Amino acid sequence: MTACIHDHHAFGPARWGADDRIGAGNLLTPERRLAALAGVSTGEAINLDHIIDANAPRIEPNQTPFVMTLSPRANSVIRRRRAAGATNDAGTTLERIEMTTHVGTHIDALGHASRGNTLYNGLTVDETVDDFGLTELGIEHLPPMITRGVMLDVSGPEGLLRPGDVVTVDDLQRAEEVAKVDVQEGDVVCIHTGWGRWFGVDNARYVSGEPGIDVPAAEWLISKGVVAIAADNPAVEVIPNPRADRMLPVHQHTLTDAGVYLIENLNSAALASRGCHAFCFMLLAARFRGATGCPVRPVALL
Amino acid sequence: MTACIHDHHAFGPARWGADDRIGAGNLLTPERRLAALAGVSTGEAINLDHIIDANAPRIEPNQTPFVMTLSPRANSVIRRRRAAGATNDAGTTLERIEMTTHVGTHIDALGHASRGNTLYNGLTVDETVDDFGLTELGIEHLPPMITRGVMLDVSGPEGLLRPGDVVTVDDLQRAEEVAKVDVQEGDVVCIHTGWGRWFGVDNARYVSGEPGIDVPAAEWLISKGVVAIAADNPAVEVIPNPRADRMLPVHQHTLTDAGVYLIENLNSAALASRGCHAFCFMLLAARFRGATGCPVRPVALL
Amino acid sequence: MTACIHDHHAFGPARWGADDRIGAGNLLTPERRLAALAGVSTGEAINLDHIIDANAPRIEPNQTPFVMTLSPRANSVIRRRRAAGATNDAGTTLERIEMTTHVGTHIDALGHASRGNTLYNGLTVDETVDDFGLTELGIEHLPPMITRGVMLDVSGPEGLLRPGDVVTVDDLQRAEEVAKVDVQEGDVVCIHTGWGRWFGVDNARYVSGEPGIDVPAAEWLISKGVVAIAADNPAVEVIPNPRADRMLPVHQHTLTDAGVYLIENLNSAALASRGCHAFCFMLLAARFRGATGCPVRPVALL
Amino acid sequence: MTACIHDHHAFGPARWGADDRIGAGNLLTPERRLAALAGVSTGEAINLDHIIDANAPRIEPNQTPFVMTLSPRANSVIRRRRAAGATNDAGTTLERIEMTTHVGTHIDALGHASRGNTLYNGLTVDETVDDFGLTELGIEHLPPMITRGVMLDVSGPEGLLRPGDVVTVDDLQRAEEVAKVDVQEGDVVCIHTGWGRWFGVDNARYVSGEPGIDVPAAEWLISKGVVAIAADNPAVEVIPNPRADRMLPVHQHTLTDAGVYLIENLNSAALASRGCHAFCFMLLAARFRGATGCPVRPVALL
Repeated sequence: MTACIHDHHAFGPARWGADDRIGAGNLLTPERRLAALAGVSTGEAINLDHIIDANAPRIEPNQTPFVMTLSPRANSVIRRRRAAGATNDAGTTLERIEMTTHVGTHIDALGHASRGNTLYNGLTVDETVDDFGLTELGIEHLPPMITRGVMLDVSGPEGLLRPGDVVTVDDLQRAEEVAKVDVQEGDVVCIHTGWGRWFGVDNARYVSGEPGIDVPAAEWLISKGVVAIAADNPAVEVIPNPRADRMLPVHQHTLTDAGVYLIENLNSAALASRGCHAFCFMLLAARFRGATGCPVRPVALL
Repeated sequence: MTACIHDHHAFGPARWGADDRIGAGNLLTPERRLAALAGVSTGEAINLDHIIDANAPRIEPNQTPFVMTLSPRANSVIRRRRAAGATNDAGTTLERIEMTTHVGTHIDALGHASRGNTLYNGLTVDETVDDFGLTELGIEHLPPMITRGVMLDVSGPEGLLRPGDVVTVDDLQRAEEVAKVDVQEGDVVCIHTGWGRWFGVDNARYVSGEPGIDVPAAEWLISKGVVAIAADNPAVEVIPNPRADRMLPVHQHTLTDAGVYLIENLNSAALASRGCHAFCFMLLAARFRGATGCPVRPVALL
Repeated sequence: MTACIHDHHAFGPARWGADDRIGAGNLLTPERRLAALAGVSTGEAINLDHIIDANAPRIEPNQTPFVMTLSPRANSVIRRRRAAGATNDAGTTLERIEMTTHVGTHIDALGHASRGNTLYNGLTVDETVDDFGLTELGIEHLPPMITRGVMLDVSGPEGLLRPGDVVTVDDLQRAEEVAKVDVQEGDVVCIHTGWGRWFGVDNARYVSGEPGIDVPAAEWLISKGVVAIAADNPAVEVIPNPRADRMLPVHQHTLTDAGVYLIENLNSAALASRGCHAFCFMLLAARFRGATGCPVRPVALL
Repeated sequence: MTACIHDHHAFGPARWGADDRIGAGNLLTPERRLAALAGVSTGEAINLDHIIDANAPRIEPNQTPFVMTLSPRANSVIRRRRAAGATNDAGTTLERIEMTTHVGTHIDALGHASRGNTLYNGLTVDETVDDFGLTELGIEHLPPMITRGVMLDVSGPEGLLRPGDVVTVDDLQRAEEVAKVDVQEGDVVCIHTGWGRWFGVDNARYVSGEPGIDVPAAEWLISKGVVAIAADNPAVEVIPNPRADRMLPVHQHTLTDAGVYLIENLNSAALASRGCHAFCFMLLAARFRGATGCPVRPVALL
């Protein structure tokens, strides 16, 4: 299906140095921020996320359930504070959340994926995957992501691809032509397959497989110098993979080999329906130390 | 200490309508975004957060522990994928997190605080505080926060206030003068007390009390039309309150009465040391449905 | 369907005093323990539980997911201990569990169910249901349960009842006759409906409804003085209730009014297939303070 | 300090076969149950556990926090059920618990401890320690534990040993003499050091170290054929170990080599103060599949 001749040495140490921990995050320069902001004209912000709740789809068993309940609650807190002498009845309600960071719209940290024992930039699973978090390559290293976003609509005439449909380099190039944009170094590419319509609507279908890029398209995007690849599907890449003996090879080529980030479960519906192809992309991931990702709320600023 | 005559009707329904759920979030207009972005000159981004881990301080018992462990892990996943026929040894590691959204640097949702049974805009605890989240006023309603940030350094000659030290209107006005900025409608005000130096360094001290604003200073900021008040302390407001029978009155005046947001455990050290007093403030909270807040990673863009 | 004239005053304060917190647990006397043990002849122990894992059925949304993952793990721990100077490579593995106590085979604490604001023995939800546990009536009050167990097989000629099938007083009395046992004060009655066969096998069916007792049968058992009613179904009682406007009325009559315990998701298959109708019943619930129940591993000792 | 020449082959495969998964659990025979029950005279049950709550001491970081909050709650549930048409206002309250099974009084599963990559009976960490539980040697394999319990009081004239105090074979033998019991095959030995007095009272002290047995005493007990060793301390064994380069060697000799169980944080105060030295010991661990232990509520039946 694909003759992937991947030169592992084109990335990693040779590119940003042996101590690098952020990969393509190095491309998130002040200059690119300024350039992206320069394109903002109306100040409108489009949400690129889905709201997260217990109904968020998940790929079992690796993505564990999201559970949220409220505790403590205003009424009980007021009761305790009265007992402690307060008269202003200040109630405060908090919640407890049980989650993986890969819930809902999220970004993968570089340490999320491995090729055997190998992680990004020559680090190893054995030394990096520790009990209470990644000792390296956790999401806390990710810089603020404010750069150009490019939306490539590959959803085709029906506005919807199907599981196993491979988004090819040709597909991406055609989408570039329609969009009248060229993918450039430092971009976040948002691939719209149409599959996101099932998020939270028909979760069983949504996670049963997905249309997405395979390794050649990933390599092409990597060669363009993108910071991150986002898509409106659970794993960015096509599932099942055309090669039956491959699972998540795009994760390996992007995160592990190239240090390029993946943003999953993107909500690209509004971008697609409005035909927004270039915009200022903003993503500020909460810095959970050693986490393998982060639920995020990316926005497109127009 | 303070004769607070607060007109509840000046805010809430009278201001943004009976159906309003976002309070001062209404001030986050495209125009303000454009204005804030217009002031960006170098593209440098300063992190305004602390990294979140099990060592994050917390106010017990309401703020429950943060627990994060890695599972599944690359090695086990590879083993299972081999058994399923895969040959490319794609490992993926995820984590499970147990947390409250009020961990680390976070923003409070409007529904976080009550005055007795009353929440923002006439909603009630009884109807809004439900088992699995707030039915209204959850953090998912918060718009992308991209607006002007103003840092007011009230840390004084020692660079550090003490628990119970009240930040007064005079203090804020003096800080405005030094900063050569006037707090304006739509601003996020970042109050630097110096107390943040103990975050993660001496947690017992950090949560034992705090310097911060009391109701008059909150009212003054609200009267200026701020969107949010941020501070480098656990609760924005002074603890213990000068009035022994008051607990968290500023939470009530800001969140409950005025619909103004609070951002806690801000990391304002870099802003203060560099003397950055006005900047583009960005905060994109992940949209957990019904959550009473969100851990965030705000940045100042210069 | 049933004209339930329930005299609330027959139970509660009038029976074991206004300070009572254990209800029918008062019947768990040393004398009854000795009597139950006196019937043990072979020493064989039959498990009356289902093994608990992520596949345990649950009634959504109240029964939240069970999530278990291993952390820390022997390999990582050994690495850290080596770094700390240890040479004996002692690995230890632990796990983290997220659960409700109502997972799998479990016992309900008296404070689990209410009639409006009323809990067992005149306590109130408002005062007892606190943020971090029940202030009264939590499972920690339950004495060790070592008493006579009686299995009543009501599964009928097909060995299986269906959702909505009501187990009546007649059914129980017929089962008594077959079993040649009379339900007596202090007994734990184990009702075998056959429904338990779907536990973990067809969870969607298992929780879609259930055969079980309705209020009259519960009242009859209460009048006999049972300590607990156990059944091989999710809620002991018939669901849906014959009266469309009633939900969980048996919970109210047993736990709330009478202080009689419920044991759910019992695994009574072995008892039924072997025709064990009387035995020594043992249940030792871990004492989680303020918990509304406890996952347990009851056994029948023959 | 001790020249431990341990013959690994005396246990494991040579004893109960290559497929054995329960080790000394094989000694929990019906005959021993009957013998233990035969000694019961009054029917009194003494709790041997501590109540579990957020204040339970824990050895950080391996033993993660215990967090419990109530959700859903009766009031909210009643509101929803009314909306669904119910008129009987049946409230039900549940809780969510985040925990490790090693909280409070608990039993260790055989798979909890390793000697390098080796687990009990030749199993390996690599194959057995999986993401969602132990594939073998989890606590679900433990039979109901109803056997003779023997309490050996080694607390000395002050009723309290100190961290690092080694409980020797001589100490145990002297305690046997005082108790007028001989440790026999199938017994659960409960060692009272007095250290348990700090559980929940001074947690920092309680986990700062502990008096307990070292390898020779463990070997002696193993040679007697005990099923389990329980103690009123966090790890049964002395900490710090007299040999500075050893950590938890008793865990390895008991769980890993010999298949003998450990029961930690026992509450032996009542046994000691009353001088109960032999009794019927009962422990029924909830069967969490693949768990490395279980919080329990053991009792002594007199």
